[in-house]
Amino acid sequence: MAGYVYTFGNGKADGDKSQKNLLGGKGAGLAEMARLGLPVPAGFTITTGCCKYYFKSDANYPPHLNDEVENALKHIESIMDMKFGDPEQPLLVSCRSGARTSMPGMMETVLNVGLTTKTIPGMIKKTNNERFVYDAYRRLIMMYSDVVMEKSEGFEPDEGKGIRIQLEHIMDQMKINKVYKGDTDFTAEDLKVLSEKFKIKIKEVLGVEFPDEPHKQLWGAIGAVFKSWNGKRAISYRRIEGIPDEWGTAVTVQSMVFGNMGDTSATGVGFTRNPATGENSLYGEWLPNAQGEDVVAGIRTPNPLNEATKNEQNKHLPSLEKAMPESYQQLHDIRDNLESHFCNMQDLEFTIQENKLYMLQTRVGKRTGIAALNMAMDMLSEGLIDEKTAVTRVSPAQLDELLHPLVDPDAETKCRVIAKGLPAGPGGACGQIVFTSEDAVSWQKKGKNVILVREETNPEDVEGMRAAVAVLTARGGMTSHAALVARGWGKCCIVGAGTLKIDVSNKKIIIDDIEYCEGDTCTLNGSKGFVYAGQLPMIDATETPRLSEFMTIVDKFRTMKVRTNAETSKDVKIARKFGAEGIGLFRTEHMFYGEGSEKPLFLLRKMILSNTEMERRAALEELFPYVKNEMKKTMEIMNGLPVTFRLLDPPLHEFVPHSKQNQQELARALNVDVETIAKRSELFNESNPMMGHRGVRLGITYPEISEMQFRAILEAAAELIKEGNKAHPEIMVPVTCDVKELDNMKVLTDKIYNGVIAKFRIDKIDYQYGTMIEIPRAALLADKMAGTAEFFSFGTNDLTQMTFGFSRDDIGGFMGEYIDKKIIKDDPFQTLDIEGVGALIQMAVTKGRSTRPNLKIGICGEHGGDAASVEFCYQCGFDYVSCSPFRLPIARLAAAQAAIVAEEN
Amino acid sequence: MAGYVYTFGNGKADGDKSQKNLLGGKGAGLAEMARLGLPVPAGFTITTGCCKYYFKSDANYPPHLNDEVENALKHIESIMDMKFGDPEQPLLVSCRSGARTSMPGMMETVLNVGLTTKTIPGMIKKTNNERFVYDAYRRLIMMYSDVVMEKSEGFEPDEGKGIRIQLEHIMDQMKINKVYKGDTDFTAEDLKVLSEKFKIKIKEVLGVEFPDEPHKQLWGAIGAVFKSWNGKRAISYRRIEGIPDEWGTAVTVQSMVFGNMGDTSATGVGFTRNPATGENSLYGEWLPNAQGEDVVAGIRTPNPLNEATKNEQNKHLPSLEKAMPESYQQLHDIRDNLESHFCNMQDLEFTIQENKLYMLQTRVGKRTGIAALNMAMDMLSEGLIDEKTAVTRVSPAQLDELLHPLVDPDAETKCRVIAKGLPAGPGGACGQIVFTSEDAVSWQKKGKNVILVREETNPEDVEGMRAAVAVLTARGGMTSHAALVARGWGKCCIVGAGTLKIDVSNKKIIIDDIEYCEGDTCTLNGSKGFVYAGQLPMIDATETPRLSEFMTIVDKFRTMKVRTNAETSKDVKIARKFGAEGIGLFRTEHMFYGEGSEKPLFLLRKMILSNTEMERRAALEELFPYVKNEMKKTMEIMNGLPVTFRLLDPPLHEFVPHSKQNQQELARALNVDVETIAKRSELFNESNPMMGHRGVRLGITYPEISEMQFRAILEAAAELIKEGNKAHPEIMVPVTCDVKELDNMKVLTDKIYNGVIAKFRIDKIDYQYGTMIEIPRAALLADKMAGTAEFFSFGTNDLTQMTFGFSRDDIGGFMGEYIDKKIIKDDPFQTLDIEGVGALIQMAVTKGRSTRPNLKIGICGEHGGDAASVEFCYQCGFDYVSCSPFRLPIARLAAAQAAIVAEEN
Repeated sequence: MAGYVYTFGNGKADGDKSQKNLLGGKGAGLAEMARLGLPVPAGFTITTGCCKYYFKSDANYPPHLNDEVENALKHIESIMDMKFGDPEQPLLVSCRSGARTSMPGMMETVLNVGLTTKTIPGMIKKTNNERFVYDAYRRLIMMYSDVVMEKSEGFEPDEGKGIRIQLEHIMDQMKINKVYKGDTDFTAEDLKVLSEKFKIKIKEVLGVEFPDEPHKQLWGAIGAVFKSWNGKRAISYRRIEGIPDEWGTAVTVQSMVFGNMGDTSATGVGFTRNPATGENSLYGEWLPNAQGEDVVAGIRTPNPLNEATKNEQNKHLPSLEKAMPESYQQLHDIRDNLESHFCNMQDLEFTIQENKLYMLQTRVGKRTGIAALNMAMDMLSEGLIDEKTAVTRVSPAQLDELLHPLVDPDAETKCRVIAKGLPAGPGGACGQIVFTSEDAVSWQKKGKNVILVREETNPEDVEGMRAAVAVLTARGGMTSHAALVARGWGKCCIVGAGTLKIDVSNKKIIIDDIEYCEGDTCTLNGSKGFVYAGQLPMIDATETPRLSEFMTIVDKFRTMKVRTNAETSKDVKIARKFGAEGIGLFRTEHMFYGEGSEKPLFLLRKMILSNTEMERRAALEELFPYVKNEMKKTMEIMNGLPVTFRLLDPPLHEFVPHSKQNQQELARALNVDVETIAKRSELFNESNPMMGHRGVRLGITYPEISEMQFRAILEAAAELIKEGNKAHPEIMVPVTCDVKELDNMKVLTDKIYNGVIAKFRIDKIDYQYGTMIEIPRAALLADKMAGTAEFFSFGTNDLTQMTFGFSRDDIGGFMGEYIDKKIIKDDPFQTLDIEGVGALIQMAVTKGRSTRPNLKIGICGEHGGDAASVEFCYQCGFDYVSCSPFRLPIARLAAAQAAIVAEEN
Repeated sequence: MAGYVYTFGNGKADGDKSQKNLLGGKGAGLAEMARLGLPVPAGFTITTGCCKYYFKSDANYPPHLNDEVENALKHIESIMDMKFGDPEQPLLVSCRSGARTSMPGMMETVLNVGLTTKTIPGMIKKTNNERFVYDAYRRLIMMYSDVVMEKSEGFEPDEGKGIRIQLEHIMDQMKINKVYKGDTDFTAEDLKVLSEKFKIKIKEVLGVEFPDEPHKQLWGAIGAVFKSWNGKRAISYRRIEGIPDEWGTAVTVQSMVFGNMGDTSATGVGFTRNPATGENSLYGEWLPNAQGEDVVAGIRTPNPLNEATKNEQNKHLPSLEKAMPESYQQLHDIRDNLESHFCNMQDLEFTIQENKLYMLQTRVGKRTGIAALNMAMDMLSEGLIDEKTAVTRVSPAQLDELLHPLVDPDAETKCRVIAKGLPAGPGGACGQIVFTSEDAVSWQKKGKNVILVREETNPEDVEGMRAAVAVLTARGGMTSHAALVARGWGKCCIVGAGTLKIDVSNKKIIIDDIEYCEGDTCTLNGSKGFVYAGQLPMIDATETPRLSEFMTIVDKFRTMKVRTNAETSKDVKIARKFGAEGIGLFRTEHMFYGEGSEKPLFLLRKMILSNTEMERRAALEELFPYVKNEMKKTMEIMNGLPVTFRLLDPPLHEFVPHSKQNQQELARALNVDVETIAKRSELFNESNPMMGHRGVRLGITYPEISEMQFRAILEAAAELIKEGNKAHPEIMVPVTCDVKELDNMKVLTDKIYNGVIAKFRIDKIDYQYGTMIEIPRAALLADKMAGTAEFFSFGTNDLTQMTFGFSRDDIGGFMGEYIDKKIIKDDPFQTLDIEGVGALIQMAVTKGRSTRPNLKIGICGEHGGDAASVEFCYQCGFDYVSCSPFRLPIARLAAAQAAIVAEEN
């Protein structure tokens, strides 16, 4: 099919599951289900290609689209035996969005399209249910006027002045006048009157008539769905998720089926396995006599699908299994069919119209990290997938989630649960409660951990949810907006905690007459759905044995090594536990910061403030044992694995005291006057220290400082060798821009090496000499650098700074706007800028290996723990990535997945 | 000849003038003169290839060198009819250095090699002059013990303890004992005794015997010459001159001829034209009964070569023309021969031995800037060279010299000349007098202009001469060390000012009983040789009509445009006079600095310190007319030539007052409290402002600032068009790293453009929209940048900073050592780093033009006025270079020469 429209229904389809990019996830899933012979209401999908055409052509459709849509409508009509706009057998359709990737709630949907004054009588006759038809009609009017007539036409009403709210107000007025308790009290006549009032209001507010012609309704709805791709919410969501703007959405037009035609009708959503835990059983929620949106919107707390998955919150509610056993059995069979067909957990939507089951959606279901892990391991043991697939089934982000803290269960037993809800997002979180999305964003900017508390969330809350460490809602189910979004991000989330009385205007929650005010601290266990007052201790979730089993399989596919950036014995030990195969970055300067640094820092300062080389050498001599011992301890733990020691890197001014008081103390300790200290400190001030006298530049100007470090590294190794241990140090020279810097330092290294060999009477120390590549010039001249360097380690933090001319400390003033205005996609300090910095890296690798084919190449910038960056490193042919100890499992997984992707391409 | 030794003599030679790289300048010149049949004493040259071999092989010679040298000696012996080491007909030789480029006085020479106790009797018999032979012998001993036995063996005696000084001391003692007035009073017997005393002293001090074997002497001398290539002075000179260390020197061994064999002997140096003025006549100096070194060393004030070139200082001395007319005529004929053969001014050395003229050297003569210009124009009109050659005959450095200030002649007529000397280096200079090289260096570092005053200079003074604005000596001629070195650098220099009594220990000069002390200011006219007390006004040397004639020819060969970096009307007018074909950089921020900036700076500060966009817009509105008027004035002067306006570039904190007092003043003027000012100022502080919130980043975050500038540029142009003038503005966006920044600003530009066109009711404004390329990422992604940019202008200052990670403000701490330790060759902020930064530029040009073939490319960093960088820009295919107004002629010349070189290759 070469056009823009793909039909499905009656056991056939133009498209299939492979065409997600063209048909969107929804369209491809429906086509595939139709091909499998599952009960899918007939319909058609207008492709994403049409969406792209639409935006490129100033909101015009391709010339033949009209004909294609007409033909497709005929196709539906013949299968469903109804006619669009026909007074006797009227066909109603839904218009839904569907992008390549699910964007839940971010785009528009219009239901009941085709209901007009002409088709209403036919519908009534056919359904024999006048109230149902007028209810459908008023729903159409409300939805259509909001989505198609207002939003998609670019109206931007003030807060509370939107057409939908005005129509709801009319409905509320009637409810009050008639003393009705709820919507179900409205009679057919009431709804008919309401519809007329709605249409008058619409004409008054928007200045145009509500369309009474089915095709006009249909094209309006199609256009509104396309336009919603560029709605504010959708754009904001794409920015967060990194979805390209050019993908576009498809529109699926499908014959309406009704879950709200009485007690034999129902609607629901399900997962073929539990998306929170991974448990292997059908899991989901349903509502009798309801439309699909009612379940997802979270307005009514839905019923459980089956008995086995009932929980504390919904155990009193009827399951579909009990209420409609035949439909349930059919759904269960479909679940098995889909799982064995897709070999992955599916997220389903279904509707039962008068006891007949219809499937409305299947797609790969979102899941928590722990569920992803459990499903991967379960499906592997069930033989549904192989090891390689299992490795790809846990994303680095999901693994990250697994590595998040959990609330300490011991502490939990001792604390009172103040509220319970559905465990919608896993892990534990602790923060101060806030009540609006705006507050969440502004408090987070001030550095606070906040928990966003909402009655229920809607797409307008996305930014606030992003800013919060956790989300807590009083309403909604496991498939509500809050649950879907939070789970997608691996964020701790509890929904439907019904005992919460939320008072937004006074910014407080009342639970059992106790008030919790804005700013109060709470702790959430998102895996259980429990809320606690105050701050509870957290623990490490990485102890689960399944994780280590999974990581063992991961490592079977991984070819690139992983190392860690660590210096203290504690960190180095953790890193080994997490699979570090070496130390990629030992920062010599660490010993001058933090715990136990007083004495070495004093000696360093003494050295820095020396007036002559002789004084400096004497101070260095005193400093030497501290440096050597730290290095030795690390190599001892690593037991022969490579340890890369970076020479002193920061500009010296960082170590000089700047406050008067500290200068006085130092003056006393050094027995000089404070003016001398102050003057000498001032000498070290720089306009742009990031590009100043640091790294190898210190080594060139004060060779005695480098000498001491070379000696410390090599003597530490020599001592270990003498003691019968293994040592494999790598000497790394930072901030180089020319091979002559390396050559200059190499002369010193060789001299020291010969001295150490002689002093310790050993044959050799197995060491390597290399450099950071963190200055653009070093990357540009990598062929020369590799003449001396035996290894490169990309310092992507600095390389990013220099390549962009972005000082990491100063981007605050503009980075926000740069991302908002889409000038750059991601903060390049978090995810490697492959286009620019990556081009330099690629060039350096190629040039470096042209000189030295066995050049060892790694990365030690913070990107070494970022999955996308790790994949890039793999593609560039790196030997290893190095990251902080806690990022190691993520680096291992990303490396394995990169190898699998490469093998498959 | 495939070996390491090339012979010459008797009208033949193995080599020729094209082999400078192999034979050195001296060896190639001698070979060529031999081929021309000129009287050249026979000899041979050991190639620079041998020198390289020697250093690579741990001071060992190639295996067959000994045989080659023996054969070459036989060649000399047969031509000269003498034998090396023969007791009857002893051949003596000189050993001289000779590199590809002349390095005057930087390497060693040994004369009279072959004089031993065995050969002395033969020499005496042959010359019939015992005194001459023993004088030659004591000279050999003094020179050889110093150069070969002490220096080349690595002895480093304390100041005043060198063997040469100790031997001089013995000689002085004998003079005192015998009550002799000068060296000429020594008898043959005296000199014989001295020689014996010398040999005893040498054995005592250096521990070895003075060699009495001719071959031992010869090989010692050859080795010493090679080793002197890596002597401290030679290395220092090469660093200053940018001569590569790997070139190496050749050694020329040549039959000795003697200018000191009595009154029919003489020695001298000459230039085929006057090297100071360019005048077309033989010019030079000679001394009767002297060796060549006596002239060059400047110890005796030499005689003029001919009557026509006598001057105030030497008019009383006998000319060679009068004293030895036949030899003079022969020399004059040779001068004509060489000029017509080499088509360039030659620098000659000759010796007359008993009325027979020998040529010892010819090479292209160094000349002042004015001489270079005059010679080029003269030779062109003489038909000796064509226009293209004329253009290549003035180097950019010589042109630079021409553009230097001269002492105002008017002022000179009113001042008393306190001393006269030889006009050795052109132009005028004014500075404080100092008496040692060390003082010159240290005073210059303190920012002072100093004139180095010395009795005579020697190679140890090179650093001080470099540091001084001018050099003044009491002794020496136009070919003395001081004169040669200063002329090479285009530095103002007066030598041989004999009335100066210099008292170095008390740091003063006495002239006619008047004392001038260290720190007193003097003015030198280096073109006339006049010294004045105090500071005289200077004038511009660029008015000479020959210069504009020359520049007219230059422009015939130039294909690349030149523009200027200028903003004020004054600078813009100067630039047009100097040939600017456009403005390559108009810095918008200039109007906030310096004269007349009070009001605009106040308004800018008001804008910066605004709290809201509305306040900011109001302040911008007030600022607008100032900005527009400045822009209009510049475009008006440029009259349709392109003017590139760079948007506001520096970080805003540069404009905010930081001192308490200035903040208070501003607070009063703005009617806010000072804390508000202080707080808001603090907000702008950055850790690394060079990589902070500046350039386009300001425009993205405060679009209203860019908007005002776009409007100012376009309205200024529109007003000019309305007034019947021409305007061609170019809008340049600085500090870009991504094309989306350009796109973002382009939307604003287009909007403003449409508004201006409508407001002024004009058809169009002919403008271009482009970007600086000054961030490495912009260069890496130049193909993308060129999608929007219609031109690139390389901002090589910032590009160098980012590529090296060198903050220009902070390199003081290490740049000196980097250059000293040869880690980098030149300060990359002065001469473009072609290897690194150049690679980025080349890449950006290629990528940019791949997207937009007619992309206009220029440079506006300071390298645009550096000749080597201009050549590189030409090679990269730039459309223009832009530099400061005074550098324009240099840029034009460099561009023309680059085009000529490219055409020839």
